[in-house]
Amino acid sequence: MKKIVLLGVLALMLAAPVLAEEVESRDLTGRSDDGLLLFQSADGKFKFQLDGRINLVAALYSGSETPLANGMEVRRARLGLKPSWGDWSAQFDIDFNGVEAEIKDMWIGYGGFKDMMITLGNHKGQFSVEEVTSSRFITFIERGLPNAFAPDRRLGLSVAKWGKNWRAFAGVFGEEAVNADETGENEALNYNLRLNFLPILKDNAFIHLGGSFGHSQPNASDGGTVRFRARPETHVADNRFLNTGKIKNVQSWDQYGLELAASFGPVLVQGEYISTTVKRLEGKPDASFSGYYAFASWMVTGEKRPYSVEEGEPAGRIYAKKKGLGAFELAARISNLNLNDSEAGIMGGEGNNITLAANWYAYPNLKFAANYIMVNNDEYATGDGDYAGNDDYNVFQFGFYYSF
Amino acid sequence: MKKIVLLGVLALMLAAPVLAEEVESRDLTGRSDDGLLLFQSADGKFKFQLDGRINLVAALYSGSETPLANGMEVRRARLGLKPSWGDWSAQFDIDFNGVEAEIKDMWIGYGGFKDMMITLGNHKGQFSVEEVTSSRFITFIERGLPNAFAPDRRLGLSVAKWGKNWRAFAGVFGEEAVNADETGENEALNYNLRLNFLPILKDNAFIHLGGSFGHSQPNASDGGTVRFRARPETHVADNRFLNTGKIKNVQSWDQYGLELAASFGPVLVQGEYISTTVKRLEGKPDASFSGYYAFASWMVTGEKRPYSVEEGEPAGRIYAKKKGLGAFELAARISNLNLNDSEAGIMGGEGNNITLAANWYAYPNLKFAANYIMVNNDEYATGDGDYAGNDDYNVFQFGFYYSF
Amino acid sequence: MKKIVLLGVLALMLAAPVLAEEVESRDLTGRSDDGLLLFQSADGKFKFQLDGRINLVAALYSGSETPLANGMEVRRARLGLKPSWGDWSAQFDIDFNGVEAEIKDMWIGYGGFKDMMITLGNHKGQFSVEEVTSSRFITFIERGLPNAFAPDRRLGLSVAKWGKNWRAFAGVFGEEAVNADETGENEALNYNLRLNFLPILKDNAFIHLGGSFGHSQPNASDGGTVRFRARPETHVADNRFLNTGKIKNVQSWDQYGLELAASFGPVLVQGEYISTTVKRLEGKPDASFSGYYAFASWMVTGEKRPYSVEEGEPAGRIYAKKKGLGAFELAARISNLNLNDSEAGIMGGEGNNITLAANWYAYPNLKFAANYIMVNNDEYATGDGDYAGNDDYNVFQFGFYYSF
Repeated sequence: MKKIVLLGVLALMLAAPVLAEEVESRDLTGRSDDGLLLFQSADGKFKFQLDGRINLVAALYSGSETPLANGMEVRRARLGLKPSWGDWSAQFDIDFNGVEAEIKDMWIGYGGFKDMMITLGNHKGQFSVEEVTSSRFITFIERGLPNAFAPDRRLGLSVAKWGKNWRAFAGVFGEEAVNADETGENEALNYNLRLNFLPILKDNAFIHLGGSFGHSQPNASDGGTVRFRARPETHVADNRFLNTGKIKNVQSWDQYGLELAASFGPVLVQGEYISTTVKRLEGKPDASFSGYYAFASWMVTGEKRPYSVEEGEPAGRIYAKKKGLGAFELAARISNLNLNDSEAGIMGGEGNNITLAANWYAYPNLKFAANYIMVNNDEYATGDGDYAGNDDYNVFQFGFYYSF
Repeated sequence: MKKIVLLGVLALMLAAPVLAEEVESRDLTGRSDDGLLLFQSADGKFKFQLDGRINLVAALYSGSETPLANGMEVRRARLGLKPSWGDWSAQFDIDFNGVEAEIKDMWIGYGGFKDMMITLGNHKGQFSVEEVTSSRFITFIERGLPNAFAPDRRLGLSVAKWGKNWRAFAGVFGEEAVNADETGENEALNYNLRLNFLPILKDNAFIHLGGSFGHSQPNASDGGTVRFRARPETHVADNRFLNTGKIKNVQSWDQYGLELAASFGPVLVQGEYISTTVKRLEGKPDASFSGYYAFASWMVTGEKRPYSVEEGEPAGRIYAKKKGLGAFELAARISNLNLNDSEAGIMGGEGNNITLAANWYAYPNLKFAANYIMVNNDEYATGDGDYAGNDDYNVFQFGFYYSF
Repeated sequence: MKKIVLLGVLALMLAAPVLAEEVESRDLTGRSDDGLLLFQSADGKFKFQLDGRINLVAALYSGSETPLANGMEVRRARLGLKPSWGDWSAQFDIDFNGVEAEIKDMWIGYGGFKDMMITLGNHKGQFSVEEVTSSRFITFIERGLPNAFAPDRRLGLSVAKWGKNWRAFAGVFGEEAVNADETGENEALNYNLRLNFLPILKDNAFIHLGGSFGHSQPNASDGGTVRFRARPETHVADNRFLNTGKIKNVQSWDQYGLELAASFGPVLVQGEYISTTVKRLEGKPDASFSGYYAFASWMVTGEKRPYSVEEGEPAGRIYAKKKGLGAFELAARISNLNLNDSEAGIMGGEGNNITLAANWYAYPNLKFAANYIMVNNDEYATGDGDYAGNDDYNVFQFGFYYSF
């Protein structure tokens, strides 16, 4: 930790004065960018973007042995503020979806070097392209099963650098902002690399290749444990059938991920494979888990797919070709999560989901989504013993998204 | 639930594309509307209104047998965002008045049909005109005793339609947004109707007649119970003398309400009667409770009373005739809540309050209120056994309201 | 409480109508004031300032016997709204730094009398100039050890009046806004006076003399106790070695504070002495504690030091002389907190800290801070028995501040 923090601070301190420029009081212009609120100065030095999101989800469950609660929830109630000034920017992002206000993005960033972003604070590591993709832009209502392996936002320091058709990301992270560590133990550190390359990147087509690596250690406050678990691509019912339980005697875990996304005109195909290996202490055997998903999506109304090299994500707002009608999308996904490792004696269950989806983008800031999910769990998918295994069921869910 | 959600989604999906219009990037004008912050585009397609409220209340109690804590509280610390874009609008409303941030309004609305509003998300059912009236506009510091029967905001779908001198509202609701249901049981559903008619609606006079009906079921997570209780029109001390306790073996409860409000020039009279009947299982007798209030208010400085047909409420900002002095109001209210049903064996107590009030509207966004309440409780008003009955006392409270 | 509230309300009610003026709808101009967002009308009657702050702190501990957790935290994630309209203003300030959203400033203020501010709601009492100084402007990452004596923000009423070279403050306060009092006992009241005088106040020099007095009573809900304790000028590790524990049989406590701050050009020296005497019941002996700090700071790049007579604080934004490079500051502080009173039999420990600091103000709204703290605790500094005494260690911490 020490070295990292020192190096980071040093880098920030060296970077800025060379590039800092005079920025003073100036008038702002307010703009509505397709329903989003933005204030900026004429020279672009000062920008302030409001990032508000209301995301409601209603879900109906059928065919499950374990009772699953139909209902509606506020999935996200996000208040985000995105100021930037000169070479510096920040993000202040709170989610009010539950009983508590939860810190999401909370960072200070330096963008004074060309095609580069240095970020300090609470932000996402970049493991898995679907995790990196903003919830405003993911194709399905929930991310796929392998998202169980992607770490949450944590306090850390990262650097992203990109070129015309590539992007590299390296970060070191400590704990989540919401965790007040009262153990007196130092925070565990986690390292994360991600590389993307685009052999094709044109106005209406791209091929995105990516790989990511993560090395993580358990927090002392967790007593040297780690747990991987997943909701079945629905969040209204809180049941997580696939669940390793808390794996003990954990030294660290290494993760590898492979990403592919390709788009030609209105078609997008995307897939990932993620593997996780847990190294254990005291002669306990290592444990390995994996997951994958693949989806295909078609903009029926013909819109091309956005891609952001800066963010390394095949995502962005969809602008309907025919504005009065909005844009329609059809998509299908298969996903797998295998938390069984019989050699290590950890049988967290394996699940296979098939999802059919229809999205309607009424406006670029207003989306309606319908998903039908067929869940196929194996006998070990018992929620660490809470449920019966082999519980196969269907989910019918609707998502409503408004950004402002 | 299933049918309702499906119908609602269908309605939304059918409604919008027909009416959606091209709305793109445009400049905004910032305005202060008597102290409120508003941004809008020249054509009115995009609007963004901040709805911030600070409401402080100080209360002094005298003559009570049960000790009641004098003191001051942050009654409301509301941060609301009200974006609208084209035919769509949303409300994002959080209250920070306590230890936790609490979701208030959190919905997406469609207003593309003439004189009609479809609302999906967390919002108020419309049972009782006083409950519907925004806390910015209620005449007294707290709503009357029968407000004990009015349900909180919940996740649901509603439609309101109005004409020149009438309004109709129908809604179906599930649980409150802050309730994470972890029982695996489906959410209970609640139905709500409200009708208003105005035989007179002129610039300086109106007569508002109204009736509402509600059918509610207990959530499975509540174990089939319901509880009605009320603070004595004060919120600083948390004691709720009138309290049925948790009524068990509840199948459902039906509620009826009658509303009358009439204004001629600076005078407003308003009253409601609410009746609640709880249907019970296992041969338990049904239980019936009721309450009413009536108040008269006089704008000493002569201002007329606002009325909103869209909202179905005799309420709005008060604009002083003589701006340097603000507007003064005097008001008096009687209210009754009867939670006793001797045949059903539930004796939650009966209370009668008399309130005298003086309000000063220094600006349309700044109000000072003083209330003097005489509380008269019967012998059963024991807070479900926590306090002595027959505790009669007086409350002197001050409210401070700033909207921005 | 009664008299105070009544007098306050009376004062507010008398004050305003005389001075209220016509203020209506008007256009706003958005401005970025060195990275801060401000909207105001041309005549200045309406203003709206966003006060957003991200403050991250990373800390490394070495040499301690008690394990102290290295790590990073979101020290402050502040969302503040500062509307003002005519003679009235308000502040709506929430901190999201922890698991819960916490009310900070939440008040309504009247500024219609010349050089005077009447404030009602949750705000800081003014005891100690360092406590009064905004966290945006304090010289060191954390306030000094004697800050243990300064009360938190509480609900109350205060009046501040200032002249060309003086300022007086008087306030009466109840409980903190976040405390829901459920004991049925009245809130305890606390009284607070502060006086400042400036024999010199010029463009590039000032001498600030100050004294403050506080009389406090324990809340009934605390059972007549009071506790003084301090973190060692670091907040990442939560250990508070200096800690009296809960002192029982407390009737009240009186506090005196002396302030000195002086600046000549780029140099600022500042110091305080605070004494606290706890009066106890049932023949228990009174207990006395004290603390002090003194610091010197030098703007290496030559900037003069701001002073605000209105706020009574030697603080404000630093505007670099040479904008491309920002401003650099070096500072050193000694501080002492003595929570031992052997006659009273309360040995909470004594600590002496020496801090070396370097600050870089890249922009007026962007600051980087590095502090090195040498902590010297006596044998009684055991955190009320939780730790070993005589634990001397060093802290190396970095602070990152972005205001918007």
